[in-house]
Amino acid sequence: MAKVGVILSGCGVYDGSEIHESVLILLALDRAGVEAVCMAPDIEQMHVVDHLTGNVVSGEKRNVLVESARIARGKIRDIGTVKASEIDALIFPGGFGAAKNLCNFAVKGSDCTVDPEVARLVREIVAAKKPLAAVCIAPALISKVLGDDKIAHKLTIGTDEETARALEKMGSKHVSCPVREFVIDKENKLVSTPAYMLAGRISEAAEGIEKTVKALLEML
Amino acid sequence: MAKVGVILSGCGVYDGSEIHESVLILLALDRAGVEAVCMAPDIEQMHVVDHLTGNVVSGEKRNVLVESARIARGKIRDIGTVKASEIDALIFPGGFGAAKNLCNFAVKGSDCTVDPEVARLVREIVAAKKPLAAVCIAPALISKVLGDDKIAHKLTIGTDEETARALEKMGSKHVSCPVREFVIDKENKLVSTPAYMLAGRISEAAEGIEKTVKALLEML
Repeated sequence: MAKVGVILSGCGVYDGSEIHESVLILLALDRAGVEAVCMAPDIEQMHVVDHLTGNVVSGEKRNVLVESARIARGKIRDIGTVKASEIDALIFPGGFGAAKNLCNFAVKGSDCTVDPEVARLVREIVAAKKPLAAVCIAPALISKVLGDDKIAHKLTIGTDEETARALEKMGSKHVSCPVREFVIDKENKLVSTPAYMLAGRISEAAEGIEKTVKALLEML
Repeated sequence: MAKVGVILSGCGVYDGSEIHESVLILLALDRAGVEAVCMAPDIEQMHVVDHLTGNVVSGEKRNVLVESARIARGKIRDIGTVKASEIDALIFPGGFGAAKNLCNFAVKGSDCTVDPEVARLVREIVAAKKPLAAVCIAPALISKVLGDDKIAHKLTIGTDEETARALEKMGSKHVSCPVREFVIDKENKLVSTPAYMLAGRISEAAEGIEKTVKALLEML
């Protein structure tokens, strides 16, 4: 049974992993007969957002690995312990956690830095020629890692021009993409889809994610 | 467009709504062209569970409505403000939150009490002859409300004998059911499915939930 790493970044669209995207990925992997290996960094979240009001909760702290465990129903590993040799592919759901906890793109834009263990695993996967998928805003951190390594590549974050320009600045060729579709870079085995960068409904995100997971698994 | 109320109980299987079940319900409703009206009680959780270790976190408090908003991406209402006349049907995902926050079945078993606003809305829906679905452990609170009202009815929580006996004691006829199926009580317009009471994989829960949502909507 193939194993696909799923990198979570907390639990909730505004300060962690986008929950719908994460669950849709887990469903698509399971329906394809593939084992999901959930993982997250054992670090503090950038902040905690009250998802009812949208406001930052001052003084509250939550841990990315502990909150991600909610989505994984407790079955999750510290990314620092995972080697690329243990998995056949990697996929990143979106949510602000991908841009606040896995890297700091939400604050620094194209000058962002990526969590060292996340960057290390991305580099190992790319070096091993294993496929990698990134959903929603997660392509931003892939752009930073590959851009720093001078690897020419294609990604999408949908159609937002400012975000697309930031990816281009970091070294990606950005390709505009509608919500129900995906962009594939066959040479680098990279797949990306906009999901909630554009989705107005969960079924729109689901369609793009199902196609993305299928394209990812076809490259195994 | 039909509207279906989705009653959440927090965010995470051990102290709130089961996240996979909740998202699978939202997906099935959206794919059927139905609007989900997410709601939760504005009350404190019974407790907070660290989903990495499974241990209760002493001293930490979280609000059920605020945490449920993570699953609903912020679009959620206080159940105390929702009348049955606004919606066409009601569905409860499971997770321990349904048995710890929406009622206290997890602690009191068949002697449990149900959150007054949750009980009120269930009674209004049943009185209006609108359909109602309950997933996983959520049938326990339906059992309590209908049992107290001396309404003969059928439900399933899967195959766990001790839980089934507690439902029978509260007034249900319990029907054993495998994970990919559901139980329907046509007279009372009740549908139930075991989901993660039995599921070992997300795709098993998804199949039972998809069938449950379809059966629910066929009774509109």
